[in-house]
Amino acid sequence: MASIIKVVPAMNIVIAPSGFKESLDPVQAAECIEKGILKVAPNSKILKMPLVDGGEGFVHGLVSATKGRVINITVTGPLGLPIPSYFGFRGDRPATAIIEMAAAAGLSLVPRDQRDPTRTTSFGVGELILAAIEAGATKILVGCGDSGVCDAGIGMLQALGVRYLDGNGQALPQASGIEGLERLSVIDTSTLNPLLSRVKIDVACNWHNVLCGPKGVSRVFGPQKGATDAQVEAMSIAMERCAEAMSRILGRDISLEPGTGASGGLGAGLLLTGATLHPRYDIVMRFFDIDRAMKAADLVITAEGGIDEQTPRGKIPAEVASRAKSLNLPVIALAGTIGAGAEANYHCGIDAFASIMQGPTTLDVAIAQAKELLTDAAESSMRMVLVGQRIRKTSETLVEPPCRSKATN
Amino acid sequence: MASIIKVVPAMNIVIAPSGFKESLDPVQAAECIEKGILKVAPNSKILKMPLVDGGEGFVHGLVSATKGRVINITVTGPLGLPIPSYFGFRGDRPATAIIEMAAAAGLSLVPRDQRDPTRTTSFGVGELILAAIEAGATKILVGCGDSGVCDAGIGMLQALGVRYLDGNGQALPQASGIEGLERLSVIDTSTLNPLLSRVKIDVACNWHNVLCGPKGVSRVFGPQKGATDAQVEAMSIAMERCAEAMSRILGRDISLEPGTGASGGLGAGLLLTGATLHPRYDIVMRFFDIDRAMKAADLVITAEGGIDEQTPRGKIPAEVASRAKSLNLPVIALAGTIGAGAEANYHCGIDAFASIMQGPTTLDVAIAQAKELLTDAAESSMRMVLVGQRIRKTSETLVEPPCRSKATN
Repeated sequence: MASIIKVVPAMNIVIAPSGFKESLDPVQAAECIEKGILKVAPNSKILKMPLVDGGEGFVHGLVSATKGRVINITVTGPLGLPIPSYFGFRGDRPATAIIEMAAAAGLSLVPRDQRDPTRTTSFGVGELILAAIEAGATKILVGCGDSGVCDAGIGMLQALGVRYLDGNGQALPQASGIEGLERLSVIDTSTLNPLLSRVKIDVACNWHNVLCGPKGVSRVFGPQKGATDAQVEAMSIAMERCAEAMSRILGRDISLEPGTGASGGLGAGLLLTGATLHPRYDIVMRFFDIDRAMKAADLVITAEGGIDEQTPRGKIPAEVASRAKSLNLPVIALAGTIGAGAEANYHCGIDAFASIMQGPTTLDVAIAQAKELLTDAAESSMRMVLVGQRIRKTSETLVEPPCRSKATN
Repeated sequence: MASIIKVVPAMNIVIAPSGFKESLDPVQAAECIEKGILKVAPNSKILKMPLVDGGEGFVHGLVSATKGRVINITVTGPLGLPIPSYFGFRGDRPATAIIEMAAAAGLSLVPRDQRDPTRTTSFGVGELILAAIEAGATKILVGCGDSGVCDAGIGMLQALGVRYLDGNGQALPQASGIEGLERLSVIDTSTLNPLLSRVKIDVACNWHNVLCGPKGVSRVFGPQKGATDAQVEAMSIAMERCAEAMSRILGRDISLEPGTGASGGLGAGLLLTGATLHPRYDIVMRFFDIDRAMKAADLVITAEGGIDEQTPRGKIPAEVASRAKSLNLPVIALAGTIGAGAEANYHCGIDAFASIMQGPTTLDVAIAQAKELLTDAAESSMRMVLVGQRIRKTSETLVEPPCRSKATN
């Protein structure tokens, strides 16, 4: 038998995957990759950054990644009835709360036969915010996505004490979707709960979602939330009234501002609390202080269900890679499917990619076995990397050394 | 945009693949792997060693790998009729001829409705040998496999001048399968063509094929060559007669000797010409002087249609890996399918393996796209290796250096 070399490099590895649609959420993906790496490089120092979007799983993903805690609480659900909900605190910075709007006003909280986004409310999101402040939060990260409402955050703002008046100075009804919003004239933030002054709120938004216009939230997302054509029209008008009133307070026109349309316009509403909107993956990466982590890293591994010619246009692996490239860090991307034009990613900071398939496989089987496949693919990729580490003779003379100083200064 | 590092290592890479069943022969596999590597490491010094078995493709594989030449020639086919055939000369050592027995007596040369291995002859193989010697060969490598005969090489030996006598000293009929062999008493090699003295013959055999006994060639391969039960029995008796007569000449019992059953007993017959039998992949690796090539190599890449728990039991990737391991060389294996128990190979000298699939795929599509898939997988693997080369900080302190001197002394 041949002798066996033990290769035990103590590499610093950042694992920053997206989820794999229908099979693995980002937390599971990160765990699988970690497991695969540790099988062959058990001394690696691994930092997992599951790149959750703002929707379902946002709280549990960020809480578990930072070994934080989840607080269970009852809030007003999207239909105006009490529901069990939750928010979280990150483990490494205990004054930072994490809120997932979908936990109070998500589409999955609205039974299919009651889906009418003109009547659902984001009120519970405001309650979550207040509860988080009362529990000690000085920073709150709000995740948007998977919403079942389209009320421009009015419900949330009402929960936080904001008043809505019509042209006659009459208060509009509370927590009832867009009802009466066509008559909205003035938003009165003077009654905003003073607790809000204690907290800085950052919001993870889909940056493409805007409040108004032809690509406004009611037109783009209304139908999938159950709205009829007439309801979409009514919501559009309501969003315009809100945009006008909000823009007056903020001193700028927010109707087409990126992120304002997130979660049925919750993004816009949050602006009135002093919150800052961010592209969702940007803020999640910042949550993990990915730039600092990358400065200490030797290798970055990212992943997504598919990698193809679309990936360089803002998909997670490309976003991760572009940050890594500014530090000259090598990046490996794992995917369920390597699609057409994937080689474009080689020019965008992804140094190597691989499919997690192990042979001819149906999609159903691949989904069912996704955990094992991703784990094995991570091990296999790491083994290739270790092979490269052993081939030193030529690399030392011919590979241009990483020039980190150039990038970081 | 991030700056892009140019990684152009001049690695010495040995590419030593098997074929991929139903899709790529070993020559094609080696070419795909080379193409993939050169895409990302264009200055690599690549040595291709397509690990052909002895059967169809043996001549063209070894000739093309050494940039040699193929000589076309008419010989006696398995049915006794003239057929177009060929042999080759290796390009790097022009006095070494390469013969593929299947080019003169292969199963595919026998129309399905005429498949009767009691009547087919290896005569043409003898003609190929003579032609090679006459063309200047001082060494001949004979590949066995894919045969359509079961005459213990008698036809071949007759072409080389050997006589077969019955108990009455009467010559047995020429070139007619096993006809009359039940009466074989004496093989007279005194009339062997003196040209044979000019040449050293090595034979690439399936080492598991033996001439006689319950696992003898007629019982194991007779049925797939078209033999009835009665014919299998007749062939078994004929093989025993041949084994007795041959063993007397050679001074040892060859009836169960490895390789003697190769190509319907051609292995046994070749022994009477002074040939040496070898396990097929051993001799092919020696043909390429794989050990010498590996001494100069930094990386070995092998491949086969499937890699699984059976691979360590003598399959090509494992054979390649075991030779590489004696030199502490890293080995990567690519496969269509990574099957159950494949991780056993990690303990047998294969440092990393990967499937060539790019996503959920049917077997048919995978076969149709095998060239592209293998090329892409080779590029991807090489990219992972290059990533490893860039991660130098930790590897230099913690990876045990290759200790080649220990292995090679």
